[in-house]
Amino acid sequence: MRVPAADWVAHYARTQPAAPALGNHEGGETRTWAELDVRVGQIAHALVHGLGLARGDRIVNLSNGDLRHFELQFACARAGLVWAPLNFRNTALELAALCEGLRPALMITDSVWQDLATTVAKAAGIPRILNWDAGGELEAMLRPGATLSDGIDADAPLQILFTSGTTGKPKAAIVTLSGIVWQALNQAQFCATSEPGCHVFLPIPLFHAGGLNSLANPVLYFGGEVTVSPRFDPAATSAYVGDPAHKVTHMALPPVMYQAMADSATFAAADFSTLRRLICAGGRLTDGLRAAFAAKDVRFMTQYGGTETGPTVTSMNPDRLDKISAGSCGQKAMHIEVRLVDGEGRDVARGEPGEIWVRGPSVIGAYLGAEAAVQRPEGWLKTGDVAWEDDEGFYYIVDRVKDMYKSGGENVFPAEVEQVLLRHPAVAEVAVIGVADERWGEVGLAIVAPAKGRTVTLQDLQDVCAGQIARYKHPKRLVLVETFPRNVTGKIAKHELRAQYQGSKSA
Amino acid sequence: MRVPAADWVAHYARTQPAAPALGNHEGGETRTWAELDVRVGQIAHALVHGLGLARGDRIVNLSNGDLRHFELQFACARAGLVWAPLNFRNTALELAALCEGLRPALMITDSVWQDLATTVAKAAGIPRILNWDAGGELEAMLRPGATLSDGIDADAPLQILFTSGTTGKPKAAIVTLSGIVWQALNQAQFCATSEPGCHVFLPIPLFHAGGLNSLANPVLYFGGEVTVSPRFDPAATSAYVGDPAHKVTHMALPPVMYQAMADSATFAAADFSTLRRLICAGGRLTDGLRAAFAAKDVRFMTQYGGTETGPTVTSMNPDRLDKISAGSCGQKAMHIEVRLVDGEGRDVARGEPGEIWVRGPSVIGAYLGAEAAVQRPEGWLKTGDVAWEDDEGFYYIVDRVKDMYKSGGENVFPAEVEQVLLRHPAVAEVAVIGVADERWGEVGLAIVAPAKGRTVTLQDLQDVCAGQIARYKHPKRLVLVETFPRNVTGKIAKHELRAQYQGSKSA
Repeated sequence: MRVPAADWVAHYARTQPAAPALGNHEGGETRTWAELDVRVGQIAHALVHGLGLARGDRIVNLSNGDLRHFELQFACARAGLVWAPLNFRNTALELAALCEGLRPALMITDSVWQDLATTVAKAAGIPRILNWDAGGELEAMLRPGATLSDGIDADAPLQILFTSGTTGKPKAAIVTLSGIVWQALNQAQFCATSEPGCHVFLPIPLFHAGGLNSLANPVLYFGGEVTVSPRFDPAATSAYVGDPAHKVTHMALPPVMYQAMADSATFAAADFSTLRRLICAGGRLTDGLRAAFAAKDVRFMTQYGGTETGPTVTSMNPDRLDKISAGSCGQKAMHIEVRLVDGEGRDVARGEPGEIWVRGPSVIGAYLGAEAAVQRPEGWLKTGDVAWEDDEGFYYIVDRVKDMYKSGGENVFPAEVEQVLLRHPAVAEVAVIGVADERWGEVGLAIVAPAKGRTVTLQDLQDVCAGQIARYKHPKRLVLVETFPRNVTGKIAKHELRAQYQGSKSA
Repeated sequence: MRVPAADWVAHYARTQPAAPALGNHEGGETRTWAELDVRVGQIAHALVHGLGLARGDRIVNLSNGDLRHFELQFACARAGLVWAPLNFRNTALELAALCEGLRPALMITDSVWQDLATTVAKAAGIPRILNWDAGGELEAMLRPGATLSDGIDADAPLQILFTSGTTGKPKAAIVTLSGIVWQALNQAQFCATSEPGCHVFLPIPLFHAGGLNSLANPVLYFGGEVTVSPRFDPAATSAYVGDPAHKVTHMALPPVMYQAMADSATFAAADFSTLRRLICAGGRLTDGLRAAFAAKDVRFMTQYGGTETGPTVTSMNPDRLDKISAGSCGQKAMHIEVRLVDGEGRDVARGEPGEIWVRGPSVIGAYLGAEAAVQRPEGWLKTGDVAWEDDEGFYYIVDRVKDMYKSGGENVFPAEVEQVLLRHPAVAEVAVIGVADERWGEVGLAIVAPAKGRTVTLQDLQDVCAGQIARYKHPKRLVLVETFPRNVTGKIAKHELRAQYQGSKSA
């Protein structure tokens, strides 16, 4: 739907011109809302009147984390352009393939990624490339006093975000400004993002929905402040956030990065008294990690969601320690509908696991390409994740639908088995996948990275499962490994494991 | 647009079941969010399955201020019914006329207004009437465990609110739940309604947008608390709000009621330390009133709006004392577009007075009846109010378009003249209207209520205007009166003055 006058930048430039909007941890560059408004107007004007871009044109963006990401995003909103930030961890070949689907009118890059961007632009036939750094071609195009008027169509595509690709090929999710506004509302209740004085520290890249849309844009929507950092240095992050002078109130990171902070040298001396919420998503929050931050009087807020869903689907009430300990990812946000559905498309009974289907104004309307309609009966987006819901509406993620296998006719969710196996002290990391078996159809193969100096046998694994989970869930085969294949966000790439170990006969 | 799952009551019953939602200052009745959810479900079920009401059916409601107003509103949202609260200050004849346009399926009343409601229901042919008090017919229909599921169409009509009728006949404004959600967002920034612990005290009737939609529904949207009071007693209000144990954070009243509080016996001893915002709309905030509350460390927040506009159009930043002193009603809210337009429909130059036109998702889509389309070129609602805007986007209300007159070809805004005349110590209250004049077309007639024991001459008035405002704005005629005709909200009814004094030749 149209959200008239949804130009946050123009709004806060009027109502709080001198308040801080954006900052860069490295280099110290900052923007007040008034400065941001001027820059956004100049950039929008340059894109439309300087470069001749037209509504709907796509701009790909290959750059280190920078406050310019937000300037470019808001300039695209004013100009009706589409901003597609690319993952610089991809290869030139991968990026060129993504760009061929996008057919961008422009590549914007920085000095760090200029070479890769040039290669990609050439390979994908992108007609123009601009460097946005100070002294670069984009800056040279900006004209004092130039602006575009406030006439945003909030339902037009604004962002194209590539999903992290746990299932293989990234999909291009089309996000609108109004979707981000609804995300901001879904985030406000337990995350306190609408309260005065919010300041997000964002030491992660700006090409994923995590961080960018989960927290930064929602805080900007309510007039708060975002400080970016082009790289994640655990010690530097602990030191920055742990200095109350910086008044950082929020972060959103995956558990692996919080763990790195906790393990860093600056953690012990850090004073986290200004922190209000630490959002934790994209992995399992361990008891040890929770304890490390609780000792500093900081609580995590677990959430569940994905690029396509806003991202916030569920959010944890930080006061419900009982549910946090039980591993819940919280209750559903206000403006989203959630169903748990079995393989035949029927709602499961309360307490039973089902695939999470979601619907709502923060959920994307389409992927780039035509597969969207097929995937979305009556507007429901199938997440591919399995969860169950308790009597108070708290959700518990079980596993990915794709990772489930059938053994002797019974569904097995590997994540449940993995959590039991991790209790064995010799198991440092583990992935369970279903592999073909003549007798049972499929059985569980445990792929284990043993703890340093330890080893582990199949009998050890079965012993730790005994009495904890049904016998058909016990792994029947074992492979020992040193490392796992991972996707760009660090998750174990199970599709690669399946490809590698299909038909495995190891003992 | 559709806001799926926009059932605030169900949401907060899940996420904060034991938190207070509603209370009544008289009698002490309260509802937690869980209790409210149960009651809303039972009432919705009774309306649909007990009484057979169908989507779109209208319920008129003639009752003293009660927490049941909100229960009924949310039950109507769940059941797809339309809630039309009526003004009990109207006569039976007036109410019957309003109801004939509405064709309600049901009248709900209380013991205080039962007789009037019965008369109106009979006269207007309303098929059924129920008393909602404890022990009444509505309570008797509620079934334990009965509920209606969460499936709200937020774009369907939810409220029908009759405008206060400064121009004569009240118009029936159709308000949707999604309009109220956008109002909640428009209200959040300077009013702090999204912060935890909000508690609104609402000692005013619940049939006007003021209070109900300006503050109470926005605070409930964010999970806050509302305490109603069936009557406004200035001393009791000062005492209740002035007791920090009640943790009242917000009120929204017209200045005349704040003045009554300041004049009451309990004001001196009141401790307003829990108050965060006092919204002041529906009249001019005088310096004396501002000083009285400033002495208690409480600041007013002036706003401008109307039933049809959400109501919030503009909102004052409480830190901008310079603009408050200058009489500004603030800057525009985020999700509303504002134009200032001359008599030919052209935007006026910055600083010039023009009629306020507004557009946005909180602005009503229609009045009951067919005149709406005519009034709204390209979705713009003409407010009938005249304002100018300064360089920082602050608005200043000048007058009503209808009150303006032309003298010697020049526009005169009576409100400007009245403010000058009020500086004369013998003028207690004054209204200026344009009356026919052979030489000038129209001239100003000052209708003055003199201060006690004083009198005033036309020369006195012209003397106080000299050097302050242009000569063509000086009143040329004078009538002395003791009282003024007023509309239901206490404003001077200028259309009655015009009817009475048209062609007046008094000296």
